[in-house]
Amino acid sequence: MLIVMNKNAAASEVEAVCGKIRKLGFTPHAMPGADRTAIGITGNSGPVDPQQFRDLPGVSQAIPVTKPYKLVLREIRGSDTVVEIPSPNGVVRIGGDVLPVMAGPCAVENREMIIASAKAVKAAGATILRAGAFKPRTSPYAFQGLGREGLQYLAEAREETGLPVVTEAVDIEGVDAVEALADIIQIGARNMQNFSLLKRVGRSDKPVLLKRGMSATLDEFLQAAEYILAEGNYNVILCERGVRTFSNVTRNTLDLSAVPILKRLTHLPVIVDPSHATGIRTEVGPMAKAAVAAGADGLMIEVHPDPATAQSDGPQSLKPDDFAQLMRELARIAEAVDRRMG
Amino acid sequence: MLIVMNKNAAASEVEAVCGKIRKLGFTPHAMPGADRTAIGITGNSGPVDPQQFRDLPGVSQAIPVTKPYKLVLREIRGSDTVVEIPSPNGVVRIGGDVLPVMAGPCAVENREMIIASAKAVKAAGATILRAGAFKPRTSPYAFQGLGREGLQYLAEAREETGLPVVTEAVDIEGVDAVEALADIIQIGARNMQNFSLLKRVGRSDKPVLLKRGMSATLDEFLQAAEYILAEGNYNVILCERGVRTFSNVTRNTLDLSAVPILKRLTHLPVIVDPSHATGIRTEVGPMAKAAVAAGADGLMIEVHPDPATAQSDGPQSLKPDDFAQLMRELARIAEAVDRRMG
Amino acid sequence: MLIVMNKNAAASEVEAVCGKIRKLGFTPHAMPGADRTAIGITGNSGPVDPQQFRDLPGVSQAIPVTKPYKLVLREIRGSDTVVEIPSPNGVVRIGGDVLPVMAGPCAVENREMIIASAKAVKAAGATILRAGAFKPRTSPYAFQGLGREGLQYLAEAREETGLPVVTEAVDIEGVDAVEALADIIQIGARNMQNFSLLKRVGRSDKPVLLKRGMSATLDEFLQAAEYILAEGNYNVILCERGVRTFSNVTRNTLDLSAVPILKRLTHLPVIVDPSHATGIRTEVGPMAKAAVAAGADGLMIEVHPDPATAQSDGPQSLKPDDFAQLMRELARIAEAVDRRMG
Amino acid sequence: MLIVMNKNAAASEVEAVCGKIRKLGFTPHAMPGADRTAIGITGNSGPVDPQQFRDLPGVSQAIPVTKPYKLVLREIRGSDTVVEIPSPNGVVRIGGDVLPVMAGPCAVENREMIIASAKAVKAAGATILRAGAFKPRTSPYAFQGLGREGLQYLAEAREETGLPVVTEAVDIEGVDAVEALADIIQIGARNMQNFSLLKRVGRSDKPVLLKRGMSATLDEFLQAAEYILAEGNYNVILCERGVRTFSNVTRNTLDLSAVPILKRLTHLPVIVDPSHATGIRTEVGPMAKAAVAAGADGLMIEVHPDPATAQSDGPQSLKPDDFAQLMRELARIAEAVDRRMG
Repeated sequence: MLIVMNKNAAASEVEAVCGKIRKLGFTPHAMPGADRTAIGITGNSGPVDPQQFRDLPGVSQAIPVTKPYKLVLREIRGSDTVVEIPSPNGVVRIGGDVLPVMAGPCAVENREMIIASAKAVKAAGATILRAGAFKPRTSPYAFQGLGREGLQYLAEAREETGLPVVTEAVDIEGVDAVEALADIIQIGARNMQNFSLLKRVGRSDKPVLLKRGMSATLDEFLQAAEYILAEGNYNVILCERGVRTFSNVTRNTLDLSAVPILKRLTHLPVIVDPSHATGIRTEVGPMAKAAVAAGADGLMIEVHPDPATAQSDGPQSLKPDDFAQLMRELARIAEAVDRRMG
Repeated sequence: MLIVMNKNAAASEVEAVCGKIRKLGFTPHAMPGADRTAIGITGNSGPVDPQQFRDLPGVSQAIPVTKPYKLVLREIRGSDTVVEIPSPNGVVRIGGDVLPVMAGPCAVENREMIIASAKAVKAAGATILRAGAFKPRTSPYAFQGLGREGLQYLAEAREETGLPVVTEAVDIEGVDAVEALADIIQIGARNMQNFSLLKRVGRSDKPVLLKRGMSATLDEFLQAAEYILAEGNYNVILCERGVRTFSNVTRNTLDLSAVPILKRLTHLPVIVDPSHATGIRTEVGPMAKAAVAAGADGLMIEVHPDPATAQSDGPQSLKPDDFAQLMRELARIAEAVDRRMG
Repeated sequence: MLIVMNKNAAASEVEAVCGKIRKLGFTPHAMPGADRTAIGITGNSGPVDPQQFRDLPGVSQAIPVTKPYKLVLREIRGSDTVVEIPSPNGVVRIGGDVLPVMAGPCAVENREMIIASAKAVKAAGATILRAGAFKPRTSPYAFQGLGREGLQYLAEAREETGLPVVTEAVDIEGVDAVEALADIIQIGARNMQNFSLLKRVGRSDKPVLLKRGMSATLDEFLQAAEYILAEGNYNVILCERGVRTFSNVTRNTLDLSAVPILKRLTHLPVIVDPSHATGIRTEVGPMAKAAVAAGADGLMIEVHPDPATAQSDGPQSLKPDDFAQLMRELARIAEAVDRRMG
Repeated sequence: MLIVMNKNAAASEVEAVCGKIRKLGFTPHAMPGADRTAIGITGNSGPVDPQQFRDLPGVSQAIPVTKPYKLVLREIRGSDTVVEIPSPNGVVRIGGDVLPVMAGPCAVENREMIIASAKAVKAAGATILRAGAFKPRTSPYAFQGLGREGLQYLAEAREETGLPVVTEAVDIEGVDAVEALADIIQIGARNMQNFSLLKRVGRSDKPVLLKRGMSATLDEFLQAAEYILAEGNYNVILCERGVRTFSNVTRNTLDLSAVPILKRLTHLPVIVDPSHATGIRTEVGPMAKAAVAAGADGLMIEVHPDPATAQSDGPQSLKPDDFAQLMRELARIAEAVDRRMG
């Protein structure tokens, strides 16, 4: 059930509807949009009678929802969600006309390298620092990240550069630490259907970057996001990072058509990670440009000061100079679709 | 590194090798096989010099391992692992000539239905009861299982029938409860790369049933199992349950060739779940028979006393009568490959 | 439109219905089944009014068909099609209780090897000889087969052994030659949607073995078969040979669930080619056994007198001894499903 | 074997090398590049000794080729192939800085609609007219195109507008007619491995547009192109049109990363067909823009004067006005990558 309020509905009217929903034993989710507020209802186990809401003051429409997700639906906000990340350099917005780039190495390897990386990507125009402290690895014997020590270095890099930090939480135990130190909590592709983890970050007040699972349909992707919103955290950023197909040249197959389709279905911002999607350094630039042309709301790109020595994902990491060059090229594409990088 | 002992090596010789490994700061994994013991080494970050082991008493060979997994390798045991499940009805073995069938409903719906299900599947010849108390669901609004209450009913069903119980743990919080009450802990397809969960059940003394991820390669599947063995739990059962492809008739595409390939690569038992693989009741029987013919070590089959009213997976659940008929047909196939059901 | 005649409808009544269909400008396809004849209609561009047929003598039902195929539908025959291949050794039937095995090398390499192969597979129990004279090859620079010379050798091998021959026609130019010399015309996976070729073999009086395309849905597969039947050739044998997925161990992923699903949808016989499906010699046996257990109506298996020297597909070809052993194992599986090999 | 000539090698020196190759019984393929000519050799069944060429006048290098294709390799030309299409409006080039758009309806439905379509797409800036006269259709009962009559209407549309025409040849029988009337012969995705058809168009003097097969790897795609070049037709345009994956929202999954990868491997131009790739009108624009940003050499877009009444592919066809708007947007993207539409 989705209750759309009138354009000029008073805050008290919105609250009255929410109160009524609570009285029924359900949970209201009021989401202010560009020109009206809508209220989603969760916690009901069967259909809710719309009639009881239609006559309340300020209510414009009460619409039954038949999809397996509600709060992520574009209709609920009627406009794009803009996730705001406060930072020493000012607020970074994701979901508007300005496209942020989250850049940095695959993993925090040590203090020096992450600070050097942060400075390099900032100089090139990135506005968010990415790097993994906890690394989910296919083999139990591969480097699993520096853990809390890595988080600490990320905080130092933020202090040095003012760049807010996005980093992955791989399990519930790690969420507390990531939540305390990061500005955006990343949920990786392998955890897209780790429902306990989704619920946990749904109760966080930090924004969540949710990556599409390796073989997730867009429907499953949106339902995973719905898990987070249903717990009350509406600041979710979706990230297309390639899907698994028969194709054997690139690591994954970047499904760029997901961008316009998701933008049509949901109000959440959609960004693209061309580094994991392709796994090949020379493909990152063309795919990053294609993503911006297709309407992506931002990018996540791996940059390493010295890819040849990287502890993971070296072959897909850009060198700082190449990244700076790419940022200049991206600026031109962004302008051609009436947006700008930053 | 894999250290193969002589056929008649003394227990003290095995222990001496393990002691030497511990002294180096690594972890020894001694695995007795049909006619000799081998010892795997984990915890090393680089290659280990084999020379230092070759002259120890009782050592036959010290073999460097180049694959990203070690303890799951067939070579380490030189024979099949047989997982033993104690039960009131006697020990149920998985991995030998007798093929157990794990049968029961998708979810525990209430006390009566799970006890009725257990009796029905036992009467038809199943030796293990399956049912979910914690259900991972794509939508946050779908029935998520009865939780601890469901576990309690499973325990009662076991008491009534003597059937040991396999049920899924969907997160680390739930493992304690499942571990306490179940006989086999199931890790579902969506959690195949939930590495924290794998490590946790790797420290359990209960056997683990690990399902192949929806788009996992066999290499990734084996590495996921390696996570569990590396923690010291060698009682892992692999389960093929279909992979995601373009094919649009069945829910997933059952990849039966995984059975002989896995059997060739690893000593772990491999079972097949034709219910989730196909999602269609009429396909379950043919695929179950095919699995046994292909060399599977057991089956997991959904049976519901009244599929039409099932809270989940009704369309793929067999009725008890159909299941009983299938068990008779399976007995003939098993005999044709010199094995037997039970 | 499908017109089902009464059980005891006279031949003249069937012919009267066909005549009426022809008078409307359409093409009748009368298909006798086990206990009644049904008549399909093609050539109509829109729906045909069933009423005009319902009152004709001998007509039981006139059923509109809404699927994109008609003549392949199980309903039209109400029983299984049994394709009959005359041969010096007697009629070989495909689609009944006796399961033929088509065996032989990937390609005819020379006279001696194909005759030796034919004798070896016959000795082991195969009833049809398979081998390619025209080879569709991914690279223009790979061995493309002996062509007409190869067909000639196949005819000699048939003369020596009495085994009927199945071989591929890769283009319309080659169909005449294959049709003249072979007993079954094979259409390969790459040509499953070569519609001109399908129409041409639809006008042949030789049976057609149609392989599933590498990424064909079952719906597309059945429509490809429909192209052949619509031209009047009802002797079509479907062959599952693996589909392309992300899986990277086997050459293709054998989709065995296609067997029971196709058998449910169509009256045509369904066989399985485990050699091309897996591309690995050791997987051929387990998958062949699984296919028979799943209900396949026959098998196609690559056997080469000396796989190490094979000009193509050596790694997936069985040696004659291994094939003979497999045939013994298959006999037991066939018996377990109330059928027999031969 | 690839023989690279000196920058200033004389034509007579090139011819001398070709003569020597012919004398060995092989076929020389001299391909002039931007700053030197290279000569490929086909027709050899084993390796060719490079030494015998290294000392010939004008030869710079003789390089053995280990890939399963040679003539499509970027190295052979050392620069991009530019396919030139003569037309009443001047030469249209594919493969250079100016990006042609091939636009028009899926099928020629009648004279008026194709002429109207041609005028509309020309007005919007398209430089090539696309439309099918022969339509390969999954169902034998679907509209299969107007055939030769359709070709005739295409010729009239060309006469009216000056736009050169690209249209599909679905079989060898049809190639003569298409070759006589069209300016570019299209080979569809289903025929990518119809090797007889590839060889036939390899002997044509008309350029060939080769579409990637539904589940073709890039390696298979390049080998299919090699079939055409090996026959002497070097004017081949590759077209990415989406591949088949598990993804179930779009008709296919557009694999845009194929563009930069193919451009790196081959000298042939690479265009993109966002209409067939997505099957959804609203996705065509974003994917067309992404393709240009990713480096595509041109586009193929379905435009229908009245999509609602289209006999095929209506849901993915743009209306003329939307196409005109898209062309304006594409112009901006092209400029942002230093190219221009036209």
